[in-house]
Amino acid sequence: MANETIRIVGIDPGLRKTGWGVIASEGSRLRWIAHGVIAPSDTLPFSERLLFLMKGIQAVCHDYQADEAAVEEVFVNVNPASTLKLGQARGAVILGAASSGLSVGEYSANLIKKAVVGAGHADKSQVAFMVARLLPQSNGVKADAADALAVAITHAQLRKRALLETLNKGAA
Amino acid sequence: MANETIRIVGIDPGLRKTGWGVIASEGSRLRWIAHGVIAPSDTLPFSERLLFLMKGIQAVCHDYQADEAAVEEVFVNVNPASTLKLGQARGAVILGAASSGLSVGEYSANLIKKAVVGAGHADKSQVAFMVARLLPQSNGVKADAADALAVAITHAQLRKRALLETLNKGAA
Repeated sequence: MANETIRIVGIDPGLRKTGWGVIASEGSRLRWIAHGVIAPSDTLPFSERLLFLMKGIQAVCHDYQADEAAVEEVFVNVNPASTLKLGQARGAVILGAASSGLSVGEYSANLIKKAVVGAGHADKSQVAFMVARLLPQSNGVKADAADALAVAITHAQLRKRALLETLNKGAA
Repeated sequence: MANETIRIVGIDPGLRKTGWGVIASEGSRLRWIAHGVIAPSDTLPFSERLLFLMKGIQAVCHDYQADEAAVEEVFVNVNPASTLKLGQARGAVILGAASSGLSVGEYSANLIKKAVVGAGHADKSQVAFMVARLLPQSNGVKADAADALAVAITHAQLRKRALLETLNKGAA
């Protein structure tokens, strides 16, 4: 059971660009599967842009047979109109995963940095550097998808810890 | 063509409670069809609450054979965390309509009040009063659904005006 392989899709939501990354978590090993960016045209009506995002995530979940999803808790912008837009995009990607039958974990940016780099205040380039080290096959991943892969890595680590705690409690 | 009947679903989005109302627009007449509230349990995981909202709107669109949708532009809260939540709920209901193949019109609260009451700064009870007058069959509709019916009425009026303008341009 500790060696089960599960596939995790990590998502970094945004209305203009949503990054995604799929990894496999096998026992204590992580393996890169795929990553990419979903970018709906801004000439589409707003509802169509949301639909494009949701369908894009549905396709990723399906094509790479993801078992679980993890989404970054977005930065809450100082501009309420931007926050509202981001919220709608985030809703769309969460629904892409949830409507594909996946549970969706949510992690704050600080928690992700701590899990991947070891420090809650690491900058973006450090995150990308560690993602490249932890997933050498990802091979020059760009910022949007690096953040998405970082969320997936965080989920892989934290779900394992939660699983161990459950097992220990069971043994005690 | 001016007498075509179309069915409009109006939606007042919210994470705890989403109001909806369906009307038929037949020439210059409006007819109430149905209304209700979708309220996902707050004990569900967040992604499941969004899914409940989206599926609820999909069911309404399907059951009442809606042709077009209209959503209120939500009040942008002063609290960024609430704004983000509301954005996600709004994304879910827009996707419920868009994934059912409907176009989704968006109207500001002021525009809705102007269209229904005739004044941009009318209060909620005036809106409910006018909704009850314009749709006598709705018969004691509550606040959440009254706002949703008001959005549907606004869409019915404005799409007709847009249609007339197009026809006039064609005739000129």
